[in-house]
Amino acid sequence: MKTNTLSMETLASLCKRRGFIFQSSELYGGINGFWDYGPLGCELKRNLKEAWWKSTVRFREDVVGLDATIIMHPAIWKASGHAAGFADPMVDCKDCRKRFRADQLCEEQGQQLIKNGSSFALPEGVVCPACGSKNLTQPRAFNLMFKTFVGPVEDDSAVAWLRPETAQAIFAQFTNIVATARKKVPFGIAQMGKSFRNEINPRNYTFRSREFEQMELEFFIPPDEAVELLCGHVCTLADNPDLTGAPQPDWGWEVWHRYWVEQRLAFYRAIGLPEESLHLYWQKGDELAHYARACVDIEYAFPFGVQELEGIAARSDFDLTQHQIHSGKALDVFDEALKNAVKAKTPEELDAFTAKTIAAWAARGKSEEDARAFLAKLYDGKYIPHVIEPSAGADRMALALLCNAYDEETLTDDKGKTDTRTVLRFHPAIAPIKAAVLPLVKNRPELVAKAREVFAALQRRWNTFWDESGAIGRRYRRMDEAGTPYCVTVDFQTLEDGTVTLRDRDSMQQVRISVPDLLAKLDAEIG
Amino acid sequence: MKTNTLSMETLASLCKRRGFIFQSSELYGGINGFWDYGPLGCELKRNLKEAWWKSTVRFREDVVGLDATIIMHPAIWKASGHAAGFADPMVDCKDCRKRFRADQLCEEQGQQLIKNGSSFALPEGVVCPACGSKNLTQPRAFNLMFKTFVGPVEDDSAVAWLRPETAQAIFAQFTNIVATARKKVPFGIAQMGKSFRNEINPRNYTFRSREFEQMELEFFIPPDEAVELLCGHVCTLADNPDLTGAPQPDWGWEVWHRYWVEQRLAFYRAIGLPEESLHLYWQKGDELAHYARACVDIEYAFPFGVQELEGIAARSDFDLTQHQIHSGKALDVFDEALKNAVKAKTPEELDAFTAKTIAAWAARGKSEEDARAFLAKLYDGKYIPHVIEPSAGADRMALALLCNAYDEETLTDDKGKTDTRTVLRFHPAIAPIKAAVLPLVKNRPELVAKAREVFAALQRRWNTFWDESGAIGRRYRRMDEAGTPYCVTVDFQTLEDGTVTLRDRDSMQQVRISVPDLLAKLDAEIG
Repeated sequence: MKTNTLSMETLASLCKRRGFIFQSSELYGGINGFWDYGPLGCELKRNLKEAWWKSTVRFREDVVGLDATIIMHPAIWKASGHAAGFADPMVDCKDCRKRFRADQLCEEQGQQLIKNGSSFALPEGVVCPACGSKNLTQPRAFNLMFKTFVGPVEDDSAVAWLRPETAQAIFAQFTNIVATARKKVPFGIAQMGKSFRNEINPRNYTFRSREFEQMELEFFIPPDEAVELLCGHVCTLADNPDLTGAPQPDWGWEVWHRYWVEQRLAFYRAIGLPEESLHLYWQKGDELAHYARACVDIEYAFPFGVQELEGIAARSDFDLTQHQIHSGKALDVFDEALKNAVKAKTPEELDAFTAKTIAAWAARGKSEEDARAFLAKLYDGKYIPHVIEPSAGADRMALALLCNAYDEETLTDDKGKTDTRTVLRFHPAIAPIKAAVLPLVKNRPELVAKAREVFAALQRRWNTFWDESGAIGRRYRRMDEAGTPYCVTVDFQTLEDGTVTLRDRDSMQQVRISVPDLLAKLDAEIG
Repeated sequence: MKTNTLSMETLASLCKRRGFIFQSSELYGGINGFWDYGPLGCELKRNLKEAWWKSTVRFREDVVGLDATIIMHPAIWKASGHAAGFADPMVDCKDCRKRFRADQLCEEQGQQLIKNGSSFALPEGVVCPACGSKNLTQPRAFNLMFKTFVGPVEDDSAVAWLRPETAQAIFAQFTNIVATARKKVPFGIAQMGKSFRNEINPRNYTFRSREFEQMELEFFIPPDEAVELLCGHVCTLADNPDLTGAPQPDWGWEVWHRYWVEQRLAFYRAIGLPEESLHLYWQKGDELAHYARACVDIEYAFPFGVQELEGIAARSDFDLTQHQIHSGKALDVFDEALKNAVKAKTPEELDAFTAKTIAAWAARGKSEEDARAFLAKLYDGKYIPHVIEPSAGADRMALALLCNAYDEETLTDDKGKTDTRTVLRFHPAIAPIKAAVLPLVKNRPELVAKAREVFAALQRRWNTFWDESGAIGRRYRRMDEAGTPYCVTVDFQTLEDGTVTLRDRDSMQQVRISVPDLLAKLDAEIG
């Protein structure tokens, strides 16, 4: 997969100049790893998040939303493993006292960090990139969660963390939502919001930031054993199921996982990142977390390398099980139909099912005792749901959209003079400004009044920009840089026949069109 | 103003039962001062925020948006005064070691905290509300900002704070936005987002939380002196200006301030909090911050008392001036027209203007030196903009909407049997679910298919709920509790003539209506 040849400096310069992205606190010299979205950037991100929410929650009957706090009870991060394990290896230079991420340091010097179980060691020959010294400490784990104190006393009992992911709140509120939302497994809970990771070396513009926004879905499904008891069989990918239609009750985890991969790819197409711009990386057995059944990374070829936009993991029942253990509260669901399906089986059938399940669990390295405990619950109609987790980064996605949209085009005019046009070719659905209305001249009140009419009609539906100053060509170019797909010029002919000139950002073609036709066209193309 | 008689326990119970609001981290016993929004609550808040954004940014040409980080450079909080002064007085009980907010403690015991300049003292006779001891410490200032450390070292140089308000980022990015957004004063910058205050005693349900969401606008205006030079006069409230039309160039700060009060009241009307449910509290001279010219609190009568939803302050040029001093960078704007207006004046006219300005500043306690420095810049076309700040709390507003919407109605049926109906009378614009589609029965495929058609037509535009289980009366009641304004029932007559039954939440009246008429009605009433 070829890396995008756009230079990040060029993109960052446009982003600052046009108000997409500024460095946070720039007035005070900035703060490393934090970025602000300006007037155009915040509209881009709003559109992106709205598109995600619509496709994930609003247009589905099997997903509901949640908006939880960033600071939660610290026990949540103990249950999830983040308090103990969410750490990067870090080394210090004993001479210049600078601090680095050990894995990145090694990688930059063509080496690889040595892993011994959960501890790390530096290979020979790695030096401090700042001063060249070999006098480096051994790597130590550095927890990436930002720490704070809740309440008036700064002691250990008051420690809390800023969430490093939005997902855990979904698990922590699972029973409340099951009790109130009248949803039955399979169903999902979605959340968008800020997360924080105290990265040692934030880098690649907004890609690896310390404060960022996530869009996460936890989609809860029954364990395959429950599906088999309910449906008599489990549909797998080998059965070649139709993944584009409605989900089916006989789907096993593998089909659900692939279904969500397809759903997410459809989302990327809808926001203008077509499949050919993306790469699916299927994590291999030894890369998977111990509890994960499968994980796919959706990657984009950024100028600085091919990097992950989203991970879609089949996480088994790991998360809810951890919270059940740590909270001491039952997090299983009850399914009457499952209980009835079990009742309808003969003792011989159930014995066979028990034996088959124990053997299958053993093949995955799980004890007979665990399998029997699971089956005892299952035969009573109860289980801890498994989960498919599509987890995306909104800032990374916005950055991919910017990289993908950026284009410089050389134009040659009638006299052979060349000129470069910078244009952001955003999909209309995510473009910050959908249309600009440009009165040809600003000193003719009847023309301006007519243009105002057109503007009002567009503005009611879409984010519309009014621009009356400068030559029309310059105004078009300004909108090209903002990524505005449609420019609507009101001129003297408009006063005669009511038609306007619609100029297309990408082709620069201009057509005359009536205002009702314009509204219908934008409705069809933007939605 | 009468306090709402609804009990907060009743409201909180409904909010939990229907998935509006849950205690954060409830699975682990909760965390004081943090609240999560469940499936219905997060849609309510989304609608509220969207309504604010549309009225404040989208439908205005003179306001742009910003989405800045929660963690910013600590120098910002030094400039704003929060690092030194954003504190509550706190006392400890030396016997039981509990900690309280001194002002609340005094108030609860019918006393008042004694203020000596910036320090505090307890009046005689105040006791610990937990153990009754008189052995309390003197009040000490406790900074309300949550502290954290950015980067791998936990020392003073790494301290950063979670923002206690979204406003400061707007000032810090002011020059970047002026440079990129092609907006000239008067114009505004709006931001929505999470803020954090480490309240000693969070209370009143979600009203005073430690993590909350703000919706803030900083609207920048020229100083009155610039208006006078440009327009020859300054329009004040005494001139009885029309505040409902387009803003005028001759408006002084007083008119701009009142204009924004009216704009905000119009917003509250649009989301269903009519003026009679609100109270305007105009802060008196000695209550105002030293730099503020005026401040109005928009208050709502909550069950626990009349409390502020929003403050609308005329903050002079205080904020940008502070950031100019602390950053060492000029934050003034240049207005060519102003420079030209000054040039067109005779020396005598300017001398008179100088003398008048110095006198006016002296009357406000400002030195001649300061006035002359200001005028030197002004005569060169430069000034630091003044600001009008409407600053609202999204969670408080959501809570007011819930309190305002809650109703219990006693119904008497034909046989004289009474029954209580709980209904949330949300304005359709902010109701989490706009419409429910209910097939009369679920076992008639052609009826369900027809209902699905109606559902699809509604869902494309509005958040629509599908409910096919239970008696139709019970389904209506469930939607009443969720605050859904419209229930659409598809029955056997629908199969014959295409009409559906539209049931109104508030009146419970049912009418038959065709699907196209239904769509037109909802479009008119929801928008």
